[in-house]
Amino acid sequence: VNPCDLLSDVAPVDAAAAAAMRERIDSLTKPQGSLGRLEDLAVQLAAIAGGMPAHRYEARAILVGVGDHGVVAEGVSAYPQAVTAQMVRGFLAGTAAIGALARAVRADLVVANFGASEPLPAHADLLDLCVARGTANFASGPAMTSEQVDAALAAGAAAVTAMRARRPLEALALGEMGIGNTTSAAALTAALCDASAERTVGRGTGIDDERLERKIEIVRAAVARVAGRSWQAIVCEVGGFEIVALAGAILTAARARIPVVLDGFIVASAALVARAIAPHAIGYCIAAHRSREPGHGIALARLGLRPYLDLDLRLGEGSGAALALPLLEAAARMACEMKTFAEAGVAGARP
Amino acid sequence: VNPCDLLSDVAPVDAAAAAAMRERIDSLTKPQGSLGRLEDLAVQLAAIAGGMPAHRYEARAILVGVGDHGVVAEGVSAYPQAVTAQMVRGFLAGTAAIGALARAVRADLVVANFGASEPLPAHADLLDLCVARGTANFASGPAMTSEQVDAALAAGAAAVTAMRARRPLEALALGEMGIGNTTSAAALTAALCDASAERTVGRGTGIDDERLERKIEIVRAAVARVAGRSWQAIVCEVGGFEIVALAGAILTAARARIPVVLDGFIVASAALVARAIAPHAIGYCIAAHRSREPGHGIALARLGLRPYLDLDLRLGEGSGAALALPLLEAAARMACEMKTFAEAGVAGARP
Repeated sequence: VNPCDLLSDVAPVDAAAAAAMRERIDSLTKPQGSLGRLEDLAVQLAAIAGGMPAHRYEARAILVGVGDHGVVAEGVSAYPQAVTAQMVRGFLAGTAAIGALARAVRADLVVANFGASEPLPAHADLLDLCVARGTANFASGPAMTSEQVDAALAAGAAAVTAMRARRPLEALALGEMGIGNTTSAAALTAALCDASAERTVGRGTGIDDERLERKIEIVRAAVARVAGRSWQAIVCEVGGFEIVALAGAILTAARARIPVVLDGFIVASAALVARAIAPHAIGYCIAAHRSREPGHGIALARLGLRPYLDLDLRLGEGSGAALALPLLEAAARMACEMKTFAEAGVAGARP
Repeated sequence: VNPCDLLSDVAPVDAAAAAAMRERIDSLTKPQGSLGRLEDLAVQLAAIAGGMPAHRYEARAILVGVGDHGVVAEGVSAYPQAVTAQMVRGFLAGTAAIGALARAVRADLVVANFGASEPLPAHADLLDLCVARGTANFASGPAMTSEQVDAALAAGAAAVTAMRARRPLEALALGEMGIGNTTSAAALTAALCDASAERTVGRGTGIDDERLERKIEIVRAAVARVAGRSWQAIVCEVGGFEIVALAGAILTAARARIPVVLDGFIVASAALVARAIAPHAIGYCIAAHRSREPGHGIALARLGLRPYLDLDLRLGEGSGAALALPLLEAAARMACEMKTFAEAGVAGARP
């Protein structure tokens, strides 16, 4: 079976379960609507679950997708490509940002190699699902073949399946690592949202004005090549293995009715790819934070998602997605543990 | 000793500790500044601690200050005053929103009666520090005497002291419950921030247009009575026992170098009172979220604080403050547990 055909079969979230949860929340001992977006989150979790959500979302994990990008040869990043593999070692050793944040929010951390340019060390928390050792340089041709698009989607699906085989999974936070991947995300966002390269390209890990101009030029030229073409053509031309794989992970989690917490710009670009394959998948997605990358706002607007955290993050690794995981537990506990006005014997009821 | 004189002795946060923390964070394995406001929070926690912050802020507690307000006789709230005591019973039974959220963020929950109109049931988690059974109606005279202001400040200090005597306290989240207390907070904010009643008065728990007009009129008239007068005069005229006590709690926590997480509009008005007594106290304060009450933005601007969560909350009880507590642990773990570029052997170092 073509992975794309399989993964596109995503059911819409459950509107009846959402309505039942809204009714329950409106009867709890608080003014109606006074918990604002925490209520909306609980309603979404019920819609995703198709009934009462997980009580605590304790079975929570962060999946960090790793890939390298041929376009770094154009000087679009402040860091050399070797940093991808070095950072992964830090993820696995627990000494990188995402390790500290995963422990802070009591989430498992799993790293998946979808396309690093160097071999990565074997490790219990590393899934080896490498499609190829980095994409081709999309400044001079397509980043990947259509067979590689299918392979990356299947790899992302396999990552979620492997995580679920290992232990229960009630909430999935997605992150990424890949030097140069904001360039791919900017091109995907521009092409999939009909936005200009100037609006989707940012400074990534912190490039100077000269590199920024070059990055915009490269994205503009690549996007021009795919104007009006299908999402498959766009992804072949400017995608990244970790980005396409994360789209496969989103679709797979959605098919299993597991909420997916999106990190920043790169993961949002993966959600745009998932949306192109199965629009219903976005109902299972939760936007954690608003990145400082300008293209993130454009992607979020197209996805119809509003972030919960205001932290000016621009790291990636799943850092923002990790920080939003406690909100799922809070929303679910609110819905499951609070009493109604009637149960608590409080006067005034619904104002 | 006059409690106000004692509590005004708050040292500024430690600038040298802040600088040392910023230097450490800039050497960690991530692009400089890429964790945005999480880095700023870690720097603030170091400044508050006067050195390395608590590693995990596991000794975390929520203090909910309770008080009633004579001004509810004017019909400014959608709920009757008896709801204050009924809600407190829900807090102590663990069935209210703050109970569920406290469990979600692994925080102790302590309720302090600073001025409820009814006796509250004895309970291990309830501190009985009642100044009087509700304030006077400030539509027709001062809400409290100057002796009551002192007593409320001392009661707030006593609450924090009692909490610390019971168990260690590394982070304090503040919340409140008191039917009618957005009216007092709106008047305090208008008077202490030189803002008009129209800009500081909101719908609280959800009043209709008619009550909103009445609420604005009452606040406008009361604020006019204290124009140009001292903070003491303002607090006597329009304060609330729980609000003044929470100011005492902020000052006491600051004196003990404990970070204070502020909830919404009412706690922000308490911080305005604390600031009037000891401006340095605000350096120990962290704004959790931006409430939908319009006066909250005015108070936050005066305090110079920017919230971390975007949740449209308008409940109170400490709900937003509770939800921000995990960010303290995340910031501290990031600072304490990540390796530097040199330690991790990652190339590229500082871009």
